[in-house]
Amino acid sequence: MSNLARPIAALPIRFDDLLARFRQVRTLSESICAPLQVEDHVIQSMPDVSPPKWHLAHISWFFEAFLLKPYLKGYRSPDAAYDHLFNSYYETHGTPFPRASRGLISRPGVADVYRFRQHVDQCMGELLSNPPAEFAAEIARRVELGLQHEQQHQELLLMDIKHILAQNPLHPVYRSDLRPAPGATAGSVQRWHDYPGGLRQIGHPGGESFAFDCELPRHRQFLEDFSLASRPVSNADYLAFMLDGGYSRSDLWLSDGWAQVKQAGWNAPLYWLRHEDTWHEMTLGGLRPLDLHAPVCHVSFFEADAYARWAGARLPAEAEWEIAAAEQPVRGNFLDSDHLQPVADLSGDGPSQLFGDVWEWTASAFRPYPGFRPLEGSLGEYNGKFMSGQMVLRGGCCATPPEHVRATYRNFFYPHMRWQFAGFRLAKEI
Amino acid sequence: MSNLARPIAALPIRFDDLLARFRQVRTLSESICAPLQVEDHVIQSMPDVSPPKWHLAHISWFFEAFLLKPYLKGYRSPDAAYDHLFNSYYETHGTPFPRASRGLISRPGVADVYRFRQHVDQCMGELLSNPPAEFAAEIARRVELGLQHEQQHQELLLMDIKHILAQNPLHPVYRSDLRPAPGATAGSVQRWHDYPGGLRQIGHPGGESFAFDCELPRHRQFLEDFSLASRPVSNADYLAFMLDGGYSRSDLWLSDGWAQVKQAGWNAPLYWLRHEDTWHEMTLGGLRPLDLHAPVCHVSFFEADAYARWAGARLPAEAEWEIAAAEQPVRGNFLDSDHLQPVADLSGDGPSQLFGDVWEWTASAFRPYPGFRPLEGSLGEYNGKFMSGQMVLRGGCCATPPEHVRATYRNFFYPHMRWQFAGFRLAKEI
Amino acid sequence: MSNLARPIAALPIRFDDLLARFRQVRTLSESICAPLQVEDHVIQSMPDVSPPKWHLAHISWFFEAFLLKPYLKGYRSPDAAYDHLFNSYYETHGTPFPRASRGLISRPGVADVYRFRQHVDQCMGELLSNPPAEFAAEIARRVELGLQHEQQHQELLLMDIKHILAQNPLHPVYRSDLRPAPGATAGSVQRWHDYPGGLRQIGHPGGESFAFDCELPRHRQFLEDFSLASRPVSNADYLAFMLDGGYSRSDLWLSDGWAQVKQAGWNAPLYWLRHEDTWHEMTLGGLRPLDLHAPVCHVSFFEADAYARWAGARLPAEAEWEIAAAEQPVRGNFLDSDHLQPVADLSGDGPSQLFGDVWEWTASAFRPYPGFRPLEGSLGEYNGKFMSGQMVLRGGCCATPPEHVRATYRNFFYPHMRWQFAGFRLAKEI
Amino acid sequence: MSNLARPIAALPIRFDDLLARFRQVRTLSESICAPLQVEDHVIQSMPDVSPPKWHLAHISWFFEAFLLKPYLKGYRSPDAAYDHLFNSYYETHGTPFPRASRGLISRPGVADVYRFRQHVDQCMGELLSNPPAEFAAEIARRVELGLQHEQQHQELLLMDIKHILAQNPLHPVYRSDLRPAPGATAGSVQRWHDYPGGLRQIGHPGGESFAFDCELPRHRQFLEDFSLASRPVSNADYLAFMLDGGYSRSDLWLSDGWAQVKQAGWNAPLYWLRHEDTWHEMTLGGLRPLDLHAPVCHVSFFEADAYARWAGARLPAEAEWEIAAAEQPVRGNFLDSDHLQPVADLSGDGPSQLFGDVWEWTASAFRPYPGFRPLEGSLGEYNGKFMSGQMVLRGGCCATPPEHVRATYRNFFYPHMRWQFAGFRLAKEI
Repeated sequence: MSNLARPIAALPIRFDDLLARFRQVRTLSESICAPLQVEDHVIQSMPDVSPPKWHLAHISWFFEAFLLKPYLKGYRSPDAAYDHLFNSYYETHGTPFPRASRGLISRPGVADVYRFRQHVDQCMGELLSNPPAEFAAEIARRVELGLQHEQQHQELLLMDIKHILAQNPLHPVYRSDLRPAPGATAGSVQRWHDYPGGLRQIGHPGGESFAFDCELPRHRQFLEDFSLASRPVSNADYLAFMLDGGYSRSDLWLSDGWAQVKQAGWNAPLYWLRHEDTWHEMTLGGLRPLDLHAPVCHVSFFEADAYARWAGARLPAEAEWEIAAAEQPVRGNFLDSDHLQPVADLSGDGPSQLFGDVWEWTASAFRPYPGFRPLEGSLGEYNGKFMSGQMVLRGGCCATPPEHVRATYRNFFYPHMRWQFAGFRLAKEI
Repeated sequence: MSNLARPIAALPIRFDDLLARFRQVRTLSESICAPLQVEDHVIQSMPDVSPPKWHLAHISWFFEAFLLKPYLKGYRSPDAAYDHLFNSYYETHGTPFPRASRGLISRPGVADVYRFRQHVDQCMGELLSNPPAEFAAEIARRVELGLQHEQQHQELLLMDIKHILAQNPLHPVYRSDLRPAPGATAGSVQRWHDYPGGLRQIGHPGGESFAFDCELPRHRQFLEDFSLASRPVSNADYLAFMLDGGYSRSDLWLSDGWAQVKQAGWNAPLYWLRHEDTWHEMTLGGLRPLDLHAPVCHVSFFEADAYARWAGARLPAEAEWEIAAAEQPVRGNFLDSDHLQPVADLSGDGPSQLFGDVWEWTASAFRPYPGFRPLEGSLGEYNGKFMSGQMVLRGGCCATPPEHVRATYRNFFYPHMRWQFAGFRLAKEI
Repeated sequence: MSNLARPIAALPIRFDDLLARFRQVRTLSESICAPLQVEDHVIQSMPDVSPPKWHLAHISWFFEAFLLKPYLKGYRSPDAAYDHLFNSYYETHGTPFPRASRGLISRPGVADVYRFRQHVDQCMGELLSNPPAEFAAEIARRVELGLQHEQQHQELLLMDIKHILAQNPLHPVYRSDLRPAPGATAGSVQRWHDYPGGLRQIGHPGGESFAFDCELPRHRQFLEDFSLASRPVSNADYLAFMLDGGYSRSDLWLSDGWAQVKQAGWNAPLYWLRHEDTWHEMTLGGLRPLDLHAPVCHVSFFEADAYARWAGARLPAEAEWEIAAAEQPVRGNFLDSDHLQPVADLSGDGPSQLFGDVWEWTASAFRPYPGFRPLEGSLGEYNGKFMSGQMVLRGGCCATPPEHVRATYRNFFYPHMRWQFAGFRLAKEI
Repeated sequence: MSNLARPIAALPIRFDDLLARFRQVRTLSESICAPLQVEDHVIQSMPDVSPPKWHLAHISWFFEAFLLKPYLKGYRSPDAAYDHLFNSYYETHGTPFPRASRGLISRPGVADVYRFRQHVDQCMGELLSNPPAEFAAEIARRVELGLQHEQQHQELLLMDIKHILAQNPLHPVYRSDLRPAPGATAGSVQRWHDYPGGLRQIGHPGGESFAFDCELPRHRQFLEDFSLASRPVSNADYLAFMLDGGYSRSDLWLSDGWAQVKQAGWNAPLYWLRHEDTWHEMTLGGLRPLDLHAPVCHVSFFEADAYARWAGARLPAEAEWEIAAAEQPVRGNFLDSDHLQPVADLSGDGPSQLFGDVWEWTASAFRPYPGFRPLEGSLGEYNGKFMSGQMVLRGGCCATPPEHVRATYRNFFYPHMRWQFAGFRLAKEI
């Protein structure tokens, strides 16, 4: 999940509003880390995970590198080495510190990182209180980018914290005060909703609202008629697949997926644990009995694809998903719902839960839209360079800041990855 | 490159014609191996490569497993173990012998394999001379599949033989009597050809002619107007990219591609060798000075994509390529041209060389068409299960049997692979 | 460096003295970690390294598992899971937590570990104040073992802290108040000291003083006359080897050593850094210009062996080293010298520095002495099971507690390892 | 197993005898390969194995590189590239072709290799018929080396052929006409033979008879009294260890051995196969029911060591073995016995089978004797550079040419290796 923004249009820019929003977003990152012990900030539990203190520093580095250094006169970094240590992957901006080694660096420590954040916040306050007029539009654009970037890392922080704590046989609890799932006596029945095909438009229309470059341009696609399930596949549904030998039948799997199942010894979603003869799942609220009616989560594309084949259906193309979602309000179980875990939706016939709960794997490879252009300069490394080997996911999840998502938003992960909050919904031909 | 066929339509079937074609295709496989020494048949130079004697046995096994065993009464295999040893990847048909270990098996030897082939040929002769009436249509369909399959392996044999001999510091020559490239005093200039967009149809129409399942169904796609280069990128073009630092500028590369360049130490296409200060290339005719006007070959998708970015263009979508190719006759430098190496085409303004010379990387991931259905049973493992992580290539190459290709044909490889005869052609928005 | 103790002889045992010593050793471990930040305690910079908080917990676990649980009535562990988390490698005592994953466990945190230590210390105080009479001898023996074990981990802590901080491009300083090396205007000349051979005795004599099982039994060995260098090889000496192409001449190296040099890209000892055209070395006091007259340190057995071959000499057998060391007092640059770095010894003709400064690689494989018997039960896993593939080092180093070493002490590491404070001294035939 | 020779003493040299012996040894190598198919010559079944045709070429290269090129006036190699392709590991003689890639080279083919052999044989005939007088002694010495070297490769050929054929699920038979094991109604009882300790001499005395450098010099060692088993451990003995949970009890194993057991999934010696509920073993005569009374074979040092610990005994030191063997004639089940498999010896109370049947693992690391000096020049790479990480084996095996072995002969392998014909004999303190 790494993207970047497109030009947003014209003026006048309300810099005081922007600064208020800046402060709000920045504060949220810190409150996400508030329940952590210092030690939790240091761990890199696999190469894809970053230590929380690295996230906290990196999202500040972004403002330093792309705003303070170019635009705030006389700006001085607290430590010249930070530019190397906290660059994630911008090959054209200096030399990124090797990703897989982020967990080997104990210093700067957590307190230093917070000092760095305060320094950046203060300098950003100066810059936004008195922006140089000739760069005002570019500054506003980049601040917006930086905030969207920070929101992405807010979700990454929660994914990574969950993965870090899940390594521990003590099953540590991140927060014991999370909002509980609504008590469900029964899950909703999965229904099919039909959508007419034809020449349709997808992608972000541009204009004043924010979008990442990979959502652009809005363009036409021809779709056949299709049908979409009313809700994501649930844990109960997925257990039926498992009981039917889902993880041991090669005919259900893509070849790469089957190789992965055998090599990694998969026999259930990530974070599922058989405990006293019952399935449990590791959550940010600790180890819990599996919630049967909640959407299945922490499955790979390979598992989603195998389930769909088993069910005689398929995954939706990203265009199909977007057409359906465009009709819905962007509401759901997001970060601010404070579940930090997918929960059952009992709201009726659906289509429901397109937004929130779980990112939904689509059948579409993450490739450029016709006419795609990456941003100029280092910021152009944001999305375009990841357009091989990954699949598109849509809709946001229970760890996504609500204002960060929209129907056109394209998230992407490799097909074997499972530590993101990812589930899926079935589709089929009519 | 692994695909499988669709039902071909109705009767009456001319089994004598089919048998004649069977013999012709079978003979060609053996003549491809005729220049080899016994020792050459045994080598597996990397896990993706198979020993030539394995290919020769496997393509016979296909007829045994899917035709002789089910349909020839009283058929007996010369060795029961062959069903395990020569199964490539059909997980639902017994247990395939581990692919990466094919080079560890010295027996059955080359002479045994030829005896196996003769046995299969003779039995197939019996079957096709007197096919059981109730299965005649299915038999004809499977024979066609088997022949198409064998033709795919004819190309694989040439790819693998080239790779095997290229490991050898002695630079052995596969054949010294190949047809030389036409002498070219100058390469043709690359021009742009414009194509109108709109709602177009791609995919195979079905009916009596053969197609693999992944080419089906024919369906509508909406395309924007686009422009296609008159010819593939040449070695001279590619050298300019290299001289401009192509392999050392991270900004030109997809992230996965850049990781591959650094990890594998790539600095030129596969088989290029700097020799006495000049670029040479290993060919099936031995080590030769680089032919500057021929299409660049043995490049990965990552290299094609980086070149396109450097050139301010992009790769064509597979639909764009197919629309352009549908207007052209299926003619070009194929296996029967007996170059076994791409050569320059001097035929004018183009668009030229869409067929033959080099498979052309497209911008499209190998994913199912809307409404795709794999074949039933084990034969359904042919294409569908490879639909993740790979990219589509189009048009056939100098090692492809000419009657094996068509405008709708979809070949596929992982983006880092280079041992196939793969090049590319540029596209752009108008 | 992992060993265990032999029975120590008879009574009466002064438990008040033992408790005083217990407290002293325990306090030293904590003072070693005092300069660390919380974050430093969590890092595992390579599989051989353990996070400092793991060391602190593990050495307490040893007392819990082998003393408090069996002998202190009603003892309760603060957390049952600690028995799993802090077991190092005692396969016969429960299941050790996977070594390479020690750096993935953020909890228990540093404060929890200190609480665990205090709990163990308090309970050990109870036990030692009122030891059950029938187990008094065994208790005393095990306490002694536990303290020797903790001293070994004190050295490991310093090795690991150095390695952890050295990963950081900021070159953090562990302590800036270390005792500086004595200013040396010139290094001492290396001289040769001759020793007569004959039938000699080596190994620990047993009796009341402590020894690890691998030092026993004292036994006879026949030695030829030999000559030993007056001092360890210095950094200046080693630079001469490097300047003479030491790292690029295959003929100087053992075959396994040469493979290691090429695979790991070694061209200098570990922690050496070329900085502004001068060699520097990372120390626990930070990055410093190389001290030319100090013994070379952080070299592998392979490097020591290659140097010796280059110098026309050899490494001493461990028996030769022990014969020479038996004549010397156990004095030198140890942990309490507070250099935490080897320094030049200017005390004259030598033989000097047999004890302290650097562990000295010997030519001897770590194998059992004739008549060796490991301890009974889980404690028998201490030394014997490591007797393959490792080489013996002798004499202690600048990070070894002084009372921990003796002439018969056998340390051992794999021949490629370099993060211990290891150097070497030359020997030759007379 | 790779060694090299020491100077052999003075004249007059009978060059006609030497030539006769040369022809005899050379012929034997070819007769070992006579039962192979061409395809068998090409396979490298693991990096430690070399393709048989490589062996055949390499042992000829040795004569070319060290005799023909320096001493035969006007000698021309049939192909300059052979010097690179067939150099095994002589880093100081050109560049060895990468060992692990020997199985990737199909050319030169088997017939070419035999032509190379004939060329070398003919030129060696010329050289030995008319040796230049001033180099006669050195030539004779090197020829002897070359023949000893070729004999080592004769055993390696048989080890490697066995490993190559054993990969094949068809269980191909190398030779069906091997001499069968003598029918044994019962195995002999294992007895203990006591040997007095004291100051003893081991190592080769030098003089006119041949020895490898690592057997020299003869020197004194002090030994305690010891006891040696009358015969090697048998398959029946070893089965009892297996039935007693030998492969699942960590306490019996060295730490490195236990890691190997778990990582490789060992649960029996190499080449043992459970077939229809009975243990079988793959032999050069095909798959056979296990011969219970024959010495156990194809076990690693780790397995030998674990067995000894289980049996309350230990492995003998190499000096102990040599003292016992020095009293025995060099007779046993060697290559010329034509079993090519260890067999039971029923000759009485023993000590028996010290020579032949199986190489016997000793407790001794392969390290230099006091005063060891390698040969000068490239030939000095023969033994000395392998003196780390390996263990000594003694006595020869059923694949060793009988005149190649003596009581002082030191063979060596890494402790995890099993494809050599290796077993072991117990020892203990008296």
